[in-house]
Amino acid sequence: MALFTVDLNCDLGESFGVYNLGNDEEVLQYVTSANIACGFHAGDPSVMKKTVKLALKHNVAIGAHPGLPDLAGFGRRSMAISPEEAFDMVMYQIGALSAFLQAEGAYLHHVKPHGALYNMASVNKELSEAIAEAIYKVTPNAILYALANSELIKAGIRIGLKTANEVFADRTYQQDGTLTSRRSPDALITDHDQAVKQVVRMVKENKVLSQQGEDIAIQAETVCIHGDGPHALAFARHIREVLLREAVTLQAP
Amino acid sequence: MALFTVDLNCDLGESFGVYNLGNDEEVLQYVTSANIACGFHAGDPSVMKKTVKLALKHNVAIGAHPGLPDLAGFGRRSMAISPEEAFDMVMYQIGALSAFLQAEGAYLHHVKPHGALYNMASVNKELSEAIAEAIYKVTPNAILYALANSELIKAGIRIGLKTANEVFADRTYQQDGTLTSRRSPDALITDHDQAVKQVVRMVKENKVLSQQGEDIAIQAETVCIHGDGPHALAFARHIREVLLREAVTLQAP
Amino acid sequence: MALFTVDLNCDLGESFGVYNLGNDEEVLQYVTSANIACGFHAGDPSVMKKTVKLALKHNVAIGAHPGLPDLAGFGRRSMAISPEEAFDMVMYQIGALSAFLQAEGAYLHHVKPHGALYNMASVNKELSEAIAEAIYKVTPNAILYALANSELIKAGIRIGLKTANEVFADRTYQQDGTLTSRRSPDALITDHDQAVKQVVRMVKENKVLSQQGEDIAIQAETVCIHGDGPHALAFARHIREVLLREAVTLQAP
Amino acid sequence: MALFTVDLNCDLGESFGVYNLGNDEEVLQYVTSANIACGFHAGDPSVMKKTVKLALKHNVAIGAHPGLPDLAGFGRRSMAISPEEAFDMVMYQIGALSAFLQAEGAYLHHVKPHGALYNMASVNKELSEAIAEAIYKVTPNAILYALANSELIKAGIRIGLKTANEVFADRTYQQDGTLTSRRSPDALITDHDQAVKQVVRMVKENKVLSQQGEDIAIQAETVCIHGDGPHALAFARHIREVLLREAVTLQAP
Repeated sequence: MALFTVDLNCDLGESFGVYNLGNDEEVLQYVTSANIACGFHAGDPSVMKKTVKLALKHNVAIGAHPGLPDLAGFGRRSMAISPEEAFDMVMYQIGALSAFLQAEGAYLHHVKPHGALYNMASVNKELSEAIAEAIYKVTPNAILYALANSELIKAGIRIGLKTANEVFADRTYQQDGTLTSRRSPDALITDHDQAVKQVVRMVKENKVLSQQGEDIAIQAETVCIHGDGPHALAFARHIREVLLREAVTLQAP
Repeated sequence: MALFTVDLNCDLGESFGVYNLGNDEEVLQYVTSANIACGFHAGDPSVMKKTVKLALKHNVAIGAHPGLPDLAGFGRRSMAISPEEAFDMVMYQIGALSAFLQAEGAYLHHVKPHGALYNMASVNKELSEAIAEAIYKVTPNAILYALANSELIKAGIRIGLKTANEVFADRTYQQDGTLTSRRSPDALITDHDQAVKQVVRMVKENKVLSQQGEDIAIQAETVCIHGDGPHALAFARHIREVLLREAVTLQAP
Repeated sequence: MALFTVDLNCDLGESFGVYNLGNDEEVLQYVTSANIACGFHAGDPSVMKKTVKLALKHNVAIGAHPGLPDLAGFGRRSMAISPEEAFDMVMYQIGALSAFLQAEGAYLHHVKPHGALYNMASVNKELSEAIAEAIYKVTPNAILYALANSELIKAGIRIGLKTANEVFADRTYQQDGTLTSRRSPDALITDHDQAVKQVVRMVKENKVLSQQGEDIAIQAETVCIHGDGPHALAFARHIREVLLREAVTLQAP
Repeated sequence: MALFTVDLNCDLGESFGVYNLGNDEEVLQYVTSANIACGFHAGDPSVMKKTVKLALKHNVAIGAHPGLPDLAGFGRRSMAISPEEAFDMVMYQIGALSAFLQAEGAYLHHVKPHGALYNMASVNKELSEAIAEAIYKVTPNAILYALANSELIKAGIRIGLKTANEVFADRTYQQDGTLTSRRSPDALITDHDQAVKQVVRMVKENKVLSQQGEDIAIQAETVCIHGDGPHALAFARHIREVLLREAVTLQAP
């Protein structure tokens, strides 16, 4: 009997034109859900079609990964968009990806905002409500993946969306449940074993040790797995193996 | 009893960011269907949402108006895209617009490619098949609006789409049924009365006088109405009035 | 003898492709310098060439108006770019415009950052230094137009650029010399006479009445004139007439 | 005494944002001139700055590599731009790159159009004249690199530019001096030795064997070297070694 269950998600389809990024085919062996870029921060129509087919072949749950309209900055630079603009660009991108899913007889399983849009929404109620509303209006059954305990999770719950609290293996946490800022020297966990232990504990005990030295409560419904970088694939395989050994069932929510 | 029926369609939602183009609100009084730009040659997510609502308010049939990825050229410059790229970009754009329709409880009535994509497909079988297939795979009930007798109409019929042959009031025709090239001095009909007469004859007699002086057969299921330019609105109202006076029913297919 | 001198500057060349914006030809009758968009927030190569020729015909000083890479947002949405990215994009845009000037035997007179880039730099020392350095490295004789008393003016002075303090006719000021935020209800001066009086006093007395009710010192070397909006041209003509009547010489620095 | 001289050129700076392309640092060891992308088909301001510095470090001649505004298609898809649009976009891109050169105290050595722009101009007199004029107006001393014997070479000569006839190691030639179309099965020379021999003969004898079996006259002033692809670096090193062994001096014109 599976007492513990968690999803492993990865950003996919972030190539563009002649530019290749990530190891989509390889990382798909280790994850249970894929967030596919929708042409704003990365991805183009041809990459999207190809990535949808690839994800279906590997039988993972497929989500939209809408981002800011900033290809040069890969959607990682905060932009002062209005909640209404966020609503509009999320709806547009969900629709675009949904077409490729529909063409394959598949459906949209979840939505996870990308990069700066994800980060901005995590702490911004109005932006979160706009994003949640866009998802709800066009794909009410899609699950909203967002930072555990964030404003975006709360906005999703309020509007009636299913949500999945996302946790990070390689990031440290603050006492208030937020991620330690990347500008801080202790933001990243570079030791693979420590990263995996943090995830196992979040999944099995719903706890994580904050940088302030106290345990805080956290719900780990989906874990963010990276598909690029030199050690990404090795880490993805490792975390998968440890979780399975720990009798954690890996499946999309 | 309505013996003759025709649709009046107009391109809408071609504004972008701070840039306004066209008289969408005004021209919507005269047409029966609207082709909404999808963000490639014109339009952005916010313009699309607003235009969908406006078109619904005026109770016209709503179609997608996918174009080439060339905002600077307004999608009017031919590009050597492959049939597969055409498939991908049409599917993407249909999906994006469909999201805004779905959010309003509406559905996609038709698809009309824009500008150079429309022109290129008119004479290119492979490109036409790719476009028709993209439409068929994602919205099989949508009607394909295309140049009367073109390769695109033929491709649509072959794949099983409903089609609407589009005619032009202000363009002259060649003996082989094609439009006279815009590079030719006799490409345009600038006299409003002559333009209206040409349309009435195409609708009621299924004939048009070619530049070579002989009548050719033409099916007029939808007439292209322009929404911008100094005389566009006056002409739209005029052609509408004349058609109604001629007992032609105006409605979307 | 000209005791008082000021420059009237206006943003120009903000059209893009088929999209027209502003009344460039008209407003050029009233200003002494023009800031030409460089293709990031607005403008395209063809618009730039045309605008350079137009500005030369009207004999006004020509500056570059570099902005953020956000056409959809017209460069008005703040973006979290790094100082180095600011350096790079300002240098790129200055170079692009300079080519069109060089082709006409003209030279770059000034640089005025646009919209959010201008606002962000006004209060950000690192960003301002990056922008000032980019200008200095490629066109050391160009004058930096920036908000009076801002970080950008200070950075320009430190690096050795000539600067021009810019003031606004239609905006109110705070006790600390900053503009009242646009989010505040009292940000704008809508009364034309009051706006003109504020400018005359800034030019002749180097003072402006703050929203807190006390005079503050301000240097008015260039006044921002708007080229679009329903009353822009009338106001431009009006402010020009009043300044001339007040014996203020209008000329670019 | 150097009886024979030729330039080896390579396209550089074709990365964009987070996307890396090419092996710029490695290929710079083998070439004598670099064509740097200018932000339209590839490259961004930050990549351009970095690439200019890298090329200067390796002491190669630096040229602009302007392309069509089609990042998704990497500037390889023909677009029906007008000669005037070509003029404008080439001037813009030359200016943008020149700023980064100027900031380093360097100057623009040459201009080589990219991809579809290069190919279109090769056979189009009006387009070639527009491109040559843009170069001439803004950087009259820059050398125009273009396909040997093409319309672009001829337009450059007519307007007064220095030109460099470019030849290809890995492409076959037709009796009329044009490259065999890539659609033809015999377009490419995949055997490295054969490719090198073709270049040596073009450089030393000014002849190349056409696909029709007869020698044709060809001037080889610069050879196109590829920087990406699995065998590109090995081939670049190989051709360099053979040319040096054959007592050919390698230097930019």
